[in-house]
Amino acid sequence: MASPWKTASVPGLQLGLGCGFWICRSYRLLFRAGAMGPHVVPRQLVWLSRWQAVCARGASVQHRTRAGVSRIPSLLSPGGALGVSPLVRRSSSSTPPGAPEVVLTQQRYPVTRLPFSAVSAEDLAAFERILPGGVVTDPEVLEASNVDWLRTVRGCSKVLLRPRTSQEVARILRYCHERNLAVNPQGGNTGMVGGSVPVFDEIILSTTLMNRVISFHSVSGTLVCQAGCVLEELSRYVEERGFVMPLDLGAKGSCHIGGNVATNAGGLRFLRYGSLHGTVLGLEVVLADGTVLDCLTSLRKDNTGYDLKQLFIGSEGTLGVITAVSIQCPPKPRAVNVAFLESPFYVLVETSGSRAGHDAEKLSDFLEQALSSGLVTDGTVATDQTRLKALWALRERISEALSRDGYVYKYDLSLPTERLYDLVSDLRARLGSQAKHVVGYGHLGDGNLHLNVTSEAFSPSLLADLEPYVYEWTARQRGSVSAEHGLGFKKRGVLSYSKPPEALRLMQQLKALLDPKGILNPYKTLPAQA
Amino acid sequence: MASPWKTASVPGLQLGLGCGFWICRSYRLLFRAGAMGPHVVPRQLVWLSRWQAVCARGASVQHRTRAGVSRIPSLLSPGGALGVSPLVRRSSSSTPPGAPEVVLTQQRYPVTRLPFSAVSAEDLAAFERILPGGVVTDPEVLEASNVDWLRTVRGCSKVLLRPRTSQEVARILRYCHERNLAVNPQGGNTGMVGGSVPVFDEIILSTTLMNRVISFHSVSGTLVCQAGCVLEELSRYVEERGFVMPLDLGAKGSCHIGGNVATNAGGLRFLRYGSLHGTVLGLEVVLADGTVLDCLTSLRKDNTGYDLKQLFIGSEGTLGVITAVSIQCPPKPRAVNVAFLESPFYVLVETSGSRAGHDAEKLSDFLEQALSSGLVTDGTVATDQTRLKALWALRERISEALSRDGYVYKYDLSLPTERLYDLVSDLRARLGSQAKHVVGYGHLGDGNLHLNVTSEAFSPSLLADLEPYVYEWTARQRGSVSAEHGLGFKKRGVLSYSKPPEALRLMQQLKALLDPKGILNPYKTLPAQA
Repeated sequence: MASPWKTASVPGLQLGLGCGFWICRSYRLLFRAGAMGPHVVPRQLVWLSRWQAVCARGASVQHRTRAGVSRIPSLLSPGGALGVSPLVRRSSSSTPPGAPEVVLTQQRYPVTRLPFSAVSAEDLAAFERILPGGVVTDPEVLEASNVDWLRTVRGCSKVLLRPRTSQEVARILRYCHERNLAVNPQGGNTGMVGGSVPVFDEIILSTTLMNRVISFHSVSGTLVCQAGCVLEELSRYVEERGFVMPLDLGAKGSCHIGGNVATNAGGLRFLRYGSLHGTVLGLEVVLADGTVLDCLTSLRKDNTGYDLKQLFIGSEGTLGVITAVSIQCPPKPRAVNVAFLESPFYVLVETSGSRAGHDAEKLSDFLEQALSSGLVTDGTVATDQTRLKALWALRERISEALSRDGYVYKYDLSLPTERLYDLVSDLRARLGSQAKHVVGYGHLGDGNLHLNVTSEAFSPSLLADLEPYVYEWTARQRGSVSAEHGLGFKKRGVLSYSKPPEALRLMQQLKALLDPKGILNPYKTLPAQA
Repeated sequence: MASPWKTASVPGLQLGLGCGFWICRSYRLLFRAGAMGPHVVPRQLVWLSRWQAVCARGASVQHRTRAGVSRIPSLLSPGGALGVSPLVRRSSSSTPPGAPEVVLTQQRYPVTRLPFSAVSAEDLAAFERILPGGVVTDPEVLEASNVDWLRTVRGCSKVLLRPRTSQEVARILRYCHERNLAVNPQGGNTGMVGGSVPVFDEIILSTTLMNRVISFHSVSGTLVCQAGCVLEELSRYVEERGFVMPLDLGAKGSCHIGGNVATNAGGLRFLRYGSLHGTVLGLEVVLADGTVLDCLTSLRKDNTGYDLKQLFIGSEGTLGVITAVSIQCPPKPRAVNVAFLESPFYVLVETSGSRAGHDAEKLSDFLEQALSSGLVTDGTVATDQTRLKALWALRERISEALSRDGYVYKYDLSLPTERLYDLVSDLRARLGSQAKHVVGYGHLGDGNLHLNVTSEAFSPSLLADLEPYVYEWTARQRGSVSAEHGLGFKKRGVLSYSKPPEALRLMQQLKALLDPKGILNPYKTLPAQA
């Protein structure tokens, strides 16, 4: 049921889209609404669930999936801190037909292999004893785990391990620690920054077979599961029981909950249910030396000593391997509305609540205010699943639309709300005709701008105009150069734009404490040490 | 406006009070309701704000305040891991008239002073150079900072420092680190576990004069302030601007926000707005060696490296001194209802929402269901401030009521919801006539049981029946032996009931990394090392 409300008319608007910083001439914005700030949205709308801003191009798009390795053409730039030229030569049999092969990271980037041991035949035999049948050395199978889903980086690992239990992970790491073998923990391999694939020949430690739900508490909504459970499957599991996962991502069909936690994934429910630092109740983690750290509590409150699990949330597998997760699931909303509004920006607003009548009343009042004020010029509201999904597809397909525009330079920034769109306007002026398009979309409610710049082909001079300019601009606003994607391999060099030297030093000390040999996900998160 | 709804009648109840574990014959329970689990409360009530369970005695009570050092008689036991005999001899002039003096911790507990330097005249002169006029050595002034508010532990510090800026804190710590002088960071000194006062002669570093609001963002609701701001004053400040603090505590009139964060305080809004690990956006912390760690961001999303601030939330001043806090304030609710229900337990339910009519409708439907099912037998609803406060006073004065009952043994436990009340019944059977009363109250929604046992006077045999029994019982449920109060000095010995040896070892490593000389809040949080 979609209600056209174009003719409504009312006074007293607070949506805040007219504050200037969301005015955008060439592009339009989509928002998802949620627990938004009260001046951004009228107070009566604080029950809305999500708030996300998106700038969409009109280009026709294909629906994105992450079910295979060749799904998406590369969006990233060759050269530069984040750059890589994705399409170099055609693949051998290990690459899906028609997909170009990705250049090895070690050939593309100025990175030197650290003095880890190389995997020997004895090592393989030892792994086979730990994991009978769980040791993969077939190059065709390995290919999918050596290349990231964006097809921008590529390792040359010769072995993939698939443990089923934490104890197996512990035995593997104990062995690797002793042998000085580097390990690349891998979940669904859906990361955006090259954090989930090897840089050189690191052993790939996959959580794929660790996909068991351990427990679900039907009163509290606490889910305890192994790290390799796929987010979408967990969503289905808890929704059948009247709950929802506190996080939702475009990659949900492939990503693993352990990887989500290791990345500190943000996503579409962030504003409604908060960060994983609040919703994750407990973790089981295997440390670099094989120690199993059991902090897999399901308690809401526990002030017995330091909250160790927090260390591993967002550490990208560099401090330990997350093997199980305890997470608080909120009750499933009974009523959902999506409003798609038009103004200088496209705005996508989703509400979720417990009583459809109340929610419709609040949304209707809000929309009347927004329309009558002139801030919003047109729009539609959907409550049925088909239309809901159709509206959401407009947002979810932006990335593909961008990839059709040519070469794409991508940035994921957090900025103070009032400066969120300034960088887009600024860059348009700065880049002039060098760029085909400068596009800003993202999550208004949490200050997350997805900045995309397109050009016909990769241009070193355009890149030089973008970097470090974009990072310096962000740093001046005390923003974050990685809002929700993490640093991984591709962004580890820009950490210092958002963190002071004292913080970087402490991070390095923590890494040295927890992984003294540096075997866990090397070349990731922290800058290379001089 | 209070609406008696006793005559309502309806089917289909899910409140869950009849599940058995909340049945209580001798005592009654108060609950605050919030984002409670869906089987505990009907799904349509997920908009309720708070959920807290309390067991109240009928005794007449006096209103508790924490405005002075002598407000509350001691509730804790002498001897045993947590015990202390509070009332030993009458005070000198430094103690308020009529209040008994508290025995020195070093005389009461088996604790040995670590080999820190003693404060010399040269040290005092150095402090005076760093903090002109901010060095307090008057014994009468020091008395209030040497004794905890419960009057159960007492240090013998000879100097209290009152910096106004982070840089002053940094200079103090740099000096103390070099001189090997121990430091006791102190906020409002409202802690429950002896964490905020010296054990021996540690220098008291007070945040009292660091009470400046640094910034408030009127759109996002982000508050940035110095660590010494009093919670109640911050509440007033943000409420005037249409927001509320995400935490609320009985001690709000005295406690400092820095201390709240250092304790990882839970409190009355925990279930509605989540833990401080989610709502604190940034911290400025001075490390043991005087390094200023500036993580005072106001960003909702920031995945650039490890989330260092999390280390300090709940570390009780043992890893660093929090000097400033950035915290996310939610919008102020427009409508508040409190329902006080009677059944075998007293139940206090508070709702907060954006539209009074909607909220009243939902609450009314819920109450009709609860009443008609027979689960609830009587009750009242309040919306006006006077009645709201009167109902809340029933809960907030329980602690005083208990203190009138004789000697009180207190425990603050997290337990799985379905076992929350079992320990109370169990202890009644176990203790028999040894105990005057075994009382359980607390926060049902987050599984936090405040367990209190009273007797005419302190009894070593009763204590021996309680400890380690209560801790072992809790450990068997994988509960927490400190839900929201922390470990401080008095509970540091019981950490291992809730955390495995691997976790304890990592905590000790973190302490050694961040405070190699151990000068920050010694004798706190972690067990004494063998």
